[in-house]
Amino acid sequence: MKIALDAMGGDHAPEATVAGAIQAARAYDLEIVLVGDERRLQAELQKHDARGLPLSIVHASQAVGMEEHTMAVKQKRDASIVVAMRLAREGEVDAVASAGNSGAVMAAALFNLGRIPGVIRPALVTVYPAPPRYYILLDIGANADCKPEYLLQFAVMGAVYAEKIHGIPGPRVGIVSNGEEPDKGSMLVREAFPLLQASGLNFVGNVEGKDIHRDVADVIVTDGFTGNVIIKLTEGIVSFLGKMLVRQLTGTWRDRIALLVMAPGLLLASPGLLLMVPTLRRTRRQLDWREIGGAPLLGVNGVVIIGHGRSDAYAVRHMIRQAMVAVEQRLVPTIQEEIQRTEQIHKARGKN
Amino acid sequence: MKIALDAMGGDHAPEATVAGAIQAARAYDLEIVLVGDERRLQAELQKHDARGLPLSIVHASQAVGMEEHTMAVKQKRDASIVVAMRLAREGEVDAVASAGNSGAVMAAALFNLGRIPGVIRPALVTVYPAPPRYYILLDIGANADCKPEYLLQFAVMGAVYAEKIHGIPGPRVGIVSNGEEPDKGSMLVREAFPLLQASGLNFVGNVEGKDIHRDVADVIVTDGFTGNVIIKLTEGIVSFLGKMLVRQLTGTWRDRIALLVMAPGLLLASPGLLLMVPTLRRTRRQLDWREIGGAPLLGVNGVVIIGHGRSDAYAVRHMIRQAMVAVEQRLVPTIQEEIQRTEQIHKARGKN
Repeated sequence: MKIALDAMGGDHAPEATVAGAIQAARAYDLEIVLVGDERRLQAELQKHDARGLPLSIVHASQAVGMEEHTMAVKQKRDASIVVAMRLAREGEVDAVASAGNSGAVMAAALFNLGRIPGVIRPALVTVYPAPPRYYILLDIGANADCKPEYLLQFAVMGAVYAEKIHGIPGPRVGIVSNGEEPDKGSMLVREAFPLLQASGLNFVGNVEGKDIHRDVADVIVTDGFTGNVIIKLTEGIVSFLGKMLVRQLTGTWRDRIALLVMAPGLLLASPGLLLMVPTLRRTRRQLDWREIGGAPLLGVNGVVIIGHGRSDAYAVRHMIRQAMVAVEQRLVPTIQEEIQRTEQIHKARGKN
Repeated sequence: MKIALDAMGGDHAPEATVAGAIQAARAYDLEIVLVGDERRLQAELQKHDARGLPLSIVHASQAVGMEEHTMAVKQKRDASIVVAMRLAREGEVDAVASAGNSGAVMAAALFNLGRIPGVIRPALVTVYPAPPRYYILLDIGANADCKPEYLLQFAVMGAVYAEKIHGIPGPRVGIVSNGEEPDKGSMLVREAFPLLQASGLNFVGNVEGKDIHRDVADVIVTDGFTGNVIIKLTEGIVSFLGKMLVRQLTGTWRDRIALLVMAPGLLLASPGLLLMVPTLRRTRRQLDWREIGGAPLLGVNGVVIIGHGRSDAYAVRHMIRQAMVAVEQRLVPTIQEEIQRTEQIHKARGKN
C-alpha cells in the first residue's frame, strides 16, 4: 500500500510530517510518498536515520498556508496538497493524508477525485473523545446549509465509518435537535427524521445538546453550521473552565497565600497520586486526539484523511495509520454500496 | 406596582412560589398577586408569617404541567398561567412571572398580550454566567427556524434588555457563526450580517463557538435551534466533566485506596481552603443562576418573566425582582421605540 502525505501541511510541517512519516514507516507495512519541497524534505530526512525505510519524495514547489483561502488550490497548481491528490487520481497512491488547511484539502479532493457516485455532498467528520467512549460527529463544517437528503447521507457515511474504521457494529445514529420528541427540531431536522427512520440504520432519534457527551449515540449527525458550533463550543468551555480554576486558585493574594499554606499538606498527599497514575494515564490517553490522528473526508471518491492543524509527529503517524485502515477496510467502496442501498429504499418509499 | 405570579408554575410550586413571593414582598416595594388554587395557596401562606404583606390570591382551578404540550393553554382556560396573563391584559397587573412550562407561558402570553407592534417573533432569552461576567443569549428555543429579519430584531431586543435591565451601555452584539470572517456562516447568518451592520447597534460581528464564553460580546444572537443546542450542550459538558472527575478519583480500587493514602495530607492542607472562602463564595455567587431569577419573553406586549423550572424560593424572589425592574425601566416601550427606529433604517436602506 502506498500513501501520499502532504508533507507541507500543518502548523509544524515539514518537521512533524517527516518525523511522523518515519514513525509510520517503521510501525506499519506501507510505503509513504512525501509530497513537498524536495530540498526541505531531504534536509528533514537527514535529521533522522531513515535508511532503508520505504519513503520517497515527490517534489511540489508550492504550499497552501493554514490561513489561505480555500480557493488557493485553484491558483497553486503545484501545491503539495494538489500534487498529492493528483497522485491519488492517477492511481499512484492508495490514499492521501494531510494536516493542512482543511478547506483547501477538501477543494483539492473534490477537484481531483470528485464524489463517490450517488453522494450529493461530502462531509467533514470528527471523532470526539468523551471517555470512556468517543462519539463521531458530522458534518462539522463542509456544508453550512443542508437539505434533509444530505443529512441522511451523512448518517449512512458516518455509520460505515464507525463500523469499518472504529469497529462499532450497528452503530447508534442520532440527529442533533432542540428537543427529544420526534416533532421537535428545525424544519430541516423534522424532514430528515423520517428519512433516517426508514434508512435501515440503527436510528435512535433526536439528540439534545445536553446528551451529546452522554452515551446515547455513536454517530451524531447535524448540518455543518451546528456541527462546527458544537465542536468549537466544547473546546471553548473546557478552556474557559480551566481558566476559571486558575483564577480561583491564584486570583487574589489571599488565594495565593492559601496555596502556600496548603503546600505541606499537598506534598504529604502527593505520594497517593502515584497510585492514581494508571487511571490518569488511561484518561489522558482517552482524551488524546493524537491517537486518532485524523478523520476521512467522507464522500469523496478516494481515501483522504484530514488531520489537526497542530499535529505533531505522533499525530501524523496515526493520521497515516487511519489512511491505511480506511484502504484496508474498503471504506470508499462500502460507502458507495450503502449509499446505493439507501437510495433504493428512498425510491421504494417514494413509489408508495 | 402589581405583579402576578403563576403560583402553580415550576417543579417546586406552590411551596417555592409562595415562599419566594413572601421574600419578594418583604424585600421590594410591590404588590404580588398569587394566581392558582386558592385552597392550596392559603395552606402554603399559613406556613409563613405573611401578615400585613401586600399579597393577594386570584383563584385559578387548573394548572399546566411542566411536561404538557404547549397547546394545553388552549384547552385549560382556567389554568393559572392563563389567568395571570388575563390579569395583565386587563391592566390589573403590570407584569407576569412564571417558573412554569415555558412553551405554555409563551403561548399564553402571545394569545392574551400579543406582540409589541412591529415585532415579528418574540424570543426566549437567557443570561448565562461566565464569571467574572455573564452573556445574554437569544433566541434559545422559541423559533427553531428563523429569517434574517428575526435575528435583527432579536439583536435589537437583546440590546435593550442588556442596557435597561443589566446596565450595560452600548452592549456589544455578536452573531453565532461557524467562522470569524464576515463571509462565513449559513445563508441565514450571511444575510443577517449586513442587517446587523446597518442597525446602529454596537455590532462586533461573528462569534464562533469557542468564543461564546470569552468576553467578546454582551449580547449573542442566534436562531432558536442553535441557541437551544448551545445552552444544553454547555450544561451537558459541565456535567460530563464532573462525572469524569468522579470516575477518575473513584473508578478503580486503586484510586479509592489512593484517596485514603492522600487523606492525611489533604486534611493537613484543608485549613488553607478557609483562606479561599471569599473567592469561592464570589465564584459560586457568579455561577448562581438563581440571583438572576429569570428572563423576559422579549417581544410580547407586556412584561413576562420566565424562570427556571427548578426555581426555589430564592430564585422566585429574584424572578419577581426582574419583573419589577423591567416595568420600572420601561422595557416594553423602549423595545417598541427601538424596533421602530430599526425599521426606519431598514426602509431607508431599501430605498437606496
